[in-house]
Amino acid sequence: MTLRIGVIGTGVMGADHARTIRRHVARAEVAALCDPDADRAGVVAGEIAGARLFSDPLALIADPGIDAVVVASPDETHAECVLACIAAGKPVLCEKPLAAGAADCLRVVEAERAAGRRLVQVGFMRRFDPAYNEMRQRLASGDFGEALMLHCAHRNASVPAFFRSLMSITNAAVHEFDIVRWLLDAEIVEIEVMKPRPTRSSAAADPLFIVMRTDKDQLVDVEIFMNAGYGYDIRTELVCEKGTLTMAPPVHAEQRIGGTQRFPFAPDWRPRFAEAYRRQMQAWVDSIGTDRPVGAGAWDGLVATAIAEAGVRAFEEGGVIKVALPRF
Amino acid sequence: MTLRIGVIGTGVMGADHARTIRRHVARAEVAALCDPDADRAGVVAGEIAGARLFSDPLALIADPGIDAVVVASPDETHAECVLACIAAGKPVLCEKPLAAGAADCLRVVEAERAAGRRLVQVGFMRRFDPAYNEMRQRLASGDFGEALMLHCAHRNASVPAFFRSLMSITNAAVHEFDIVRWLLDAEIVEIEVMKPRPTRSSAAADPLFIVMRTDKDQLVDVEIFMNAGYGYDIRTELVCEKGTLTMAPPVHAEQRIGGTQRFPFAPDWRPRFAEAYRRQMQAWVDSIGTDRPVGAGAWDGLVATAIAEAGVRAFEEGGVIKVALPRF
Amino acid sequence: MTLRIGVIGTGVMGADHARTIRRHVARAEVAALCDPDADRAGVVAGEIAGARLFSDPLALIADPGIDAVVVASPDETHAECVLACIAAGKPVLCEKPLAAGAADCLRVVEAERAAGRRLVQVGFMRRFDPAYNEMRQRLASGDFGEALMLHCAHRNASVPAFFRSLMSITNAAVHEFDIVRWLLDAEIVEIEVMKPRPTRSSAAADPLFIVMRTDKDQLVDVEIFMNAGYGYDIRTELVCEKGTLTMAPPVHAEQRIGGTQRFPFAPDWRPRFAEAYRRQMQAWVDSIGTDRPVGAGAWDGLVATAIAEAGVRAFEEGGVIKVALPRF
Amino acid sequence: MTLRIGVIGTGVMGADHARTIRRHVARAEVAALCDPDADRAGVVAGEIAGARLFSDPLALIADPGIDAVVVASPDETHAECVLACIAAGKPVLCEKPLAAGAADCLRVVEAERAAGRRLVQVGFMRRFDPAYNEMRQRLASGDFGEALMLHCAHRNASVPAFFRSLMSITNAAVHEFDIVRWLLDAEIVEIEVMKPRPTRSSAAADPLFIVMRTDKDQLVDVEIFMNAGYGYDIRTELVCEKGTLTMAPPVHAEQRIGGTQRFPFAPDWRPRFAEAYRRQMQAWVDSIGTDRPVGAGAWDGLVATAIAEAGVRAFEEGGVIKVALPRF
Repeated sequence: MTLRIGVIGTGVMGADHARTIRRHVARAEVAALCDPDADRAGVVAGEIAGARLFSDPLALIADPGIDAVVVASPDETHAECVLACIAAGKPVLCEKPLAAGAADCLRVVEAERAAGRRLVQVGFMRRFDPAYNEMRQRLASGDFGEALMLHCAHRNASVPAFFRSLMSITNAAVHEFDIVRWLLDAEIVEIEVMKPRPTRSSAAADPLFIVMRTDKDQLVDVEIFMNAGYGYDIRTELVCEKGTLTMAPPVHAEQRIGGTQRFPFAPDWRPRFAEAYRRQMQAWVDSIGTDRPVGAGAWDGLVATAIAEAGVRAFEEGGVIKVALPRF
Repeated sequence: MTLRIGVIGTGVMGADHARTIRRHVARAEVAALCDPDADRAGVVAGEIAGARLFSDPLALIADPGIDAVVVASPDETHAECVLACIAAGKPVLCEKPLAAGAADCLRVVEAERAAGRRLVQVGFMRRFDPAYNEMRQRLASGDFGEALMLHCAHRNASVPAFFRSLMSITNAAVHEFDIVRWLLDAEIVEIEVMKPRPTRSSAAADPLFIVMRTDKDQLVDVEIFMNAGYGYDIRTELVCEKGTLTMAPPVHAEQRIGGTQRFPFAPDWRPRFAEAYRRQMQAWVDSIGTDRPVGAGAWDGLVATAIAEAGVRAFEEGGVIKVALPRF
Repeated sequence: MTLRIGVIGTGVMGADHARTIRRHVARAEVAALCDPDADRAGVVAGEIAGARLFSDPLALIADPGIDAVVVASPDETHAECVLACIAAGKPVLCEKPLAAGAADCLRVVEAERAAGRRLVQVGFMRRFDPAYNEMRQRLASGDFGEALMLHCAHRNASVPAFFRSLMSITNAAVHEFDIVRWLLDAEIVEIEVMKPRPTRSSAAADPLFIVMRTDKDQLVDVEIFMNAGYGYDIRTELVCEKGTLTMAPPVHAEQRIGGTQRFPFAPDWRPRFAEAYRRQMQAWVDSIGTDRPVGAGAWDGLVATAIAEAGVRAFEEGGVIKVALPRF
Repeated sequence: MTLRIGVIGTGVMGADHARTIRRHVARAEVAALCDPDADRAGVVAGEIAGARLFSDPLALIADPGIDAVVVASPDETHAECVLACIAAGKPVLCEKPLAAGAADCLRVVEAERAAGRRLVQVGFMRRFDPAYNEMRQRLASGDFGEALMLHCAHRNASVPAFFRSLMSITNAAVHEFDIVRWLLDAEIVEIEVMKPRPTRSSAAADPLFIVMRTDKDQLVDVEIFMNAGYGYDIRTELVCEKGTLTMAPPVHAEQRIGGTQRFPFAPDWRPRFAEAYRRQMQAWVDSIGTDRPVGAGAWDGLVATAIAEAGVRAFEEGGVIKVALPRF
């Protein structure tokens, strides 16, 4: 009855996933942790009674005591782990990106198809965020008419010095690439990347302004600002024929102090999306063994990566770039 | 490893608790359900694989396959069930009120003391609500200075016709009686109940306006309005020496439609406090077997009931009534 | 065509009124200023071309070049000035309070009655504030049903050391005494003054909590906090049978900076109510020579003072004090 | 001392300006009204004692009893009226646009230069709106660092059936063309007009999405939606290096009713910008006879029109169009 989960990678995201399962997820347990860095894995294991330690991800995946796998290892290892899970017939929740490039994503898609059943979920957790879900439900109600435009802002307080311009597209905007498709139930067909006056707080081209068009002719604009300074702030306004829907960040208590009336921002994405991560994990656990998969699948992972690749070209070459997807 | 919980009562609250455990609580399971109404219990059991059905609460409590008990049966049965749990040495989470009157609450308090360890938690779920917790943490930070006043509003959209005036105190305001003590870390010593002009939507004296004083000389006012019409709305503003903290109701997406910019209200307390109920249950499960109890204990249950009894006298007699607590 | 106004008193309020007329009021001019402190008057006169200077208020009032008078001299001189205006048949806008006590207010009321026409307006400027007006209009629309309760907060960032406890009632809460009557179209019949735990920022009994009842049985509670620390903040929530109306403070631009999303508070009442002061002055000018007086009249000034006097007794004696009004 | 103003045009805007002067502007009067439609002019004159009626704008401008002129006649007559005012040496406040095209605007600019002093103000009233002013002051404070991007939305509830797509640029977005330059203290050098999926509520290409670049390399995006359905809504968020500033629409009282917490929107631009119109008129009156002109001048009127013309090309031809300005 209790799903035995193995978590590959015990860095920031892997440790968070393991703790989420341990603390908040019904009918599941962290049965194993895997990291080449045994010290790091040991710290997490110390919080989770009964979790076995592995250093080889393939050994964890193959282990008969493991029913399902969370992949949160470095990006370049994702595809290999996920392919091994498919080969082993084990459900896998893979942190984004699904693979380092669209070509590798395609290998995963094809492997899953060959396996004949849905095994792969990609960790685009925003699909489980209450705010995005409320927006999607209101849109589906029809009360607002058709969606015409989507304005998005994706702001981090700051990023480390190693952060390069293109990571704004491949690591940050990729969340919008997925959630926009899901929210609008549409495919992104074109992308353009504009470079506003850059902040002096970073050596990167920051912020960026991305404009996309969907196959329903909707226009989507995304401000990506990795050094926005004031906090972590994700916004979106969905403009429909009869009204708009604007994401409200989660707040609990208004402070009136020091001359202002104020709400604090989350410092980074983890508190902002903690509830989304919890719901994603629970929904994944709930879906296993059913024929009702949830969340982003391998194809969604491929598409997000393909859009990111088009975005990288748009950044480098300028102009409007068409998104190229493999056909079947 | 998995806590086997028996849920007594499968009415609105019992069913909700059972579903919460099943769907959202780590390291626990609903091992049994008990209700004299077998049909009602069967509906809930149908959603929860493996739950055994009982009709006799004492049998459930005594069952060796049950590690801990949730009591959500009718109010007048609470004390008996909780006393049986204490006798069986099993942790119990009892819906409020702990017992029908302060005298019965005292029996529970004394039984638990005699048992020599904390076994009883009372379901004052607001102690686990994120908003109340943020307010309490900000107060504890010292940034706002000492708390001086607390303004509260407790509004329901409407209540059934059988709702009588005194239930505003015993069933509704009792939540404030508990949370105020917890938020201010203070005892309520006096209570007065004022009767404003009544709404024509009800035959009861509705709304009421309650003014209380704490042993720190803080003043607490609570508007209780059971037929407020527009939605379920719980508010509080904590007035401190250097600033105030105001609860913000949970919202996800602002709608702009039909001439207004708007947020919807929760229709009743369950969606408003769903997260509090989940966290309460998880925290209770987590605390079992540790020496760190959480939430409201039997004494807190007694105190809330004693304040409610003073409130009833204040309603009936007018004037300021002192809260009488037993001494040890 | 242009109304020639004489302004008596060039302290904070008098200077503000003179500047408002000069800068923002149509069909009026500051024809004269009067202050025993010639230097102070000279500073204001320097901003207002053509204003003559007086040191004797009665001479200003009597001057044939003056059509109407604004009284903003010290409180104890109000009654004498207003009576002189009535005797001279000149319209007068008198800063609150109308007179130092209800007995003196009554002399003004009787003198105006004897004069046979409305000449006196009392400067309860909140009656011209857009927020209060919107609340009153919504109430009048009937959409919200009858008003049952009114929750008010009146907070200053801080007050000078000479501020004594009773001034919270006579100088601050007096604004609520007037606006509550106007908003609810009801008379206040009872008042009680409670003393919460006091702030350590003041030697006065601060904050106070005032509870009043109207002749429609509505309950009104007012928090008066003169050293609230964080800013000038006036709030009110009108609780009706079908919904509530909550005053929103005027804001223009939300700031996201330094970890928070914030709005600044006005530092004191002048920026907060600048629009109310402008509208009050324009409405007074517009009303002169018509038979449609606006704003608070002499009787309203008397009533506010009578409630304040009952409030002072309530503060000193405790308990519920009935408001005593003269009968005619 | 009182400025005698002649108002040319008594349609919606002319009548509003005349009423604003009459009701709310110090040291000015409506001395004359001019409209070929005598009935329409008569209605306005009936509200304004002493205003003479003209049918010929040039006669009004030439009249020695007129000190200054407000031009609110049809767009195509603006240039001729303004040129006549310049020739007569009389200050003129001209509703936008200054002239039907940039070439005609240039004639005005050159005529004013030849006259040797500033006589022309263009009615871009947003420069006097409290919200835009607060944003500009905060930016000037330096606390937010440099401005990098500006996101704007300009939404009308609906527009008449005769409204054509290009009017979104020439009549609506032209306000943004001016205010953006003023807010950023920068020149717009490029413009692109994108066409999102159109609403089914209109035959026009509606909404539009405009992207502009300034000479400081800032990126400005503007959603223009003339049939947004829900109300009149003007928004802007200024994204700076250290934080953002977001316009808050003016609201006075939050309503909680019918399941939601809500604020009403203004139905159209007049209530939304009533304060801006009043301040614009007062500031114009105040500035006359001083050497400190305020508001948008003739050159600003020309620039806004030139950007609109580039926008029209961008709409028709696609791609990024450079804004062409005459050089001196």
